[in-house]
Amino acid sequence: MTDLAQLTNRQIRLARRPVGTPTADDWLQTAEPVQALPQGGVVVRTLALSLDPAMRGWMNEGKSYIAPVGIGEVMRAGGVGKVLASSHPKFAVGDLVSGVLGVQDYAAFTAEQAARTGLAVIDTRMGSLTQWLNVLGMPGMTAYFGLLDVGQPRPGDTVVVSGAAGAVGQTVGQLVRAGLKEHCPKGVDVYFDNVGGDILDEVLARLAMHARIVICGAISQYNNTTPVQGPRNYLSLLVHRARMQGMVVFDYAERYPQAVAELAGYLKDGRMKSREDVVHGLDRFPEALNRLFTGENFGKLVLQVADEVTGSR
Amino acid sequence: MTDLAQLTNRQIRLARRPVGTPTADDWLQTAEPVQALPQGGVVVRTLALSLDPAMRGWMNEGKSYIAPVGIGEVMRAGGVGKVLASSHPKFAVGDLVSGVLGVQDYAAFTAEQAARTGLAVIDTRMGSLTQWLNVLGMPGMTAYFGLLDVGQPRPGDTVVVSGAAGAVGQTVGQLVRAGLKEHCPKGVDVYFDNVGGDILDEVLARLAMHARIVICGAISQYNNTTPVQGPRNYLSLLVHRARMQGMVVFDYAERYPQAVAELAGYLKDGRMKSREDVVHGLDRFPEALNRLFTGENFGKLVLQVADEVTGSR
Repeated sequence: MTDLAQLTNRQIRLARRPVGTPTADDWLQTAEPVQALPQGGVVVRTLALSLDPAMRGWMNEGKSYIAPVGIGEVMRAGGVGKVLASSHPKFAVGDLVSGVLGVQDYAAFTAEQAARTGLAVIDTRMGSLTQWLNVLGMPGMTAYFGLLDVGQPRPGDTVVVSGAAGAVGQTVGQLVRAGLKEHCPKGVDVYFDNVGGDILDEVLARLAMHARIVICGAISQYNNTTPVQGPRNYLSLLVHRARMQGMVVFDYAERYPQAVAELAGYLKDGRMKSREDVVHGLDRFPEALNRLFTGENFGKLVLQVADEVTGSR
Repeated sequence: MTDLAQLTNRQIRLARRPVGTPTADDWLQTAEPVQALPQGGVVVRTLALSLDPAMRGWMNEGKSYIAPVGIGEVMRAGGVGKVLASSHPKFAVGDLVSGVLGVQDYAAFTAEQAARTGLAVIDTRMGSLTQWLNVLGMPGMTAYFGLLDVGQPRPGDTVVVSGAAGAVGQTVGQLVRAGLKEHCPKGVDVYFDNVGGDILDEVLARLAMHARIVICGAISQYNNTTPVQGPRNYLSLLVHRARMQGMVVFDYAERYPQAVAELAGYLKDGRMKSREDVVHGLDRFPEALNRLFTGENFGKLVLQVADEVTGSR
């Protein structure tokens, strides 16, 4: 059993709300002893964190689909880790887990926190740790339910996805290739939008009749210091009897296991590949996050915090 | 039998494509003898014409849900009239009809044209002539199918309609009152948008979860000489898992009779009222049309072209 009090927990906290692209001054790095094991809870060693465009939205004040990160709080982040200490019946020391770990070396959860934030044991026979942050994680779930449930592609449809180098986009693209014939009828039947801005307008100008647009994100707009650029071509929805629909992956949580099983099958039989772009070191979080906005990442952007094999057991 | 060659047909033609709000110079009034009765066809005396915001779109070049009116062509308009001459088995002299008559005193149809443009006998026991241009006509059909099929309101929903003084808006508003309980849960569940611009953005900022926005029109944008104002708050669709969907009434043509019967019943039992704003005289068309954009009309804007009782028989 590890002596938690001997370990230092480095944490990256939100120092202030960024204006435009986040800068170094928007973050504060702190260090403190690891929290004691909560009664009936669990302490997790962070192995890798998921860096997602949505994080930029969590840094803003105001109503959204999730509460903003408070000033001074540890930055919210999904991640994978290893159970270091547990008095929780569902988690044993050494288990690999995924959950909302935050940008820190160690995360402590009460039983209530573990349940509420969806801490779950992961099976690395289904996919690697980084694949659990990618195809088998939130980006994969977003792609799966956004494309299939909201986009509702049909055989022969032309499907367009923006931000296809990112984590959600790569899975959408491969789901389309894997499961649907590639045809090119005139116009776009399904558009899976991660980008917004000019690209959304370009696609709106090229819709097929009864097209479906999935609004998953709008990375082109997240660092704007001016108002969001609304889609000027939105009346194409009228001309083409088309719809534009927003989605948030959390709504599909009950169906994740089914989607994970299907996607893990595609990974195993080679119909789907996953690509991760890994940055090493917790303290590189601020710089790594900004790669999402400059378009430097190719594949799911992951921050490796600790080597899996050296993770304490 | 009327001697058609003795009658003069005044016509208002599109002289050029307007920039911004249409002006007198965009129109050309012509006069010519009434066309001879086409073999197997019908000639109709125009009694009243429907003035609709959509007409502004028909005056523009470019791809839309319907071909633009060509330069020099008689302006397209829906209307009601009386059959003046017929060799068509479905139409008898004296029948009252609705159809795409155009801004002219007399309209001649071949059998093919009559079928393609939906010329139909109307029953004034179900509603008055102007009601056939309003609740029982295209605005009523737009309201009925846009609200019920696309908006899908449920009991307890908060429904908002913009442009409620217009023909579509008044029917949407009364359908909501007639058929659904009025409650006020937080946020807007269904928004029926005829206006676009700032009003669309205001409603987007106040959506309820899983809201449905019906994009029926955008009268605030039709005379713009600058690009259309896209909805800056469209990411509210994501936050609220909401959808925005366009509709064009023609898609529901097969179901018009059922909707007309239901709406005529509401008119009869007083659950629905219709309000028309009538301008008299074909040559006042250019000025009357612009009332739609200044917001001067209250109720369905109708151009009365001939007195029903004096219509030739």
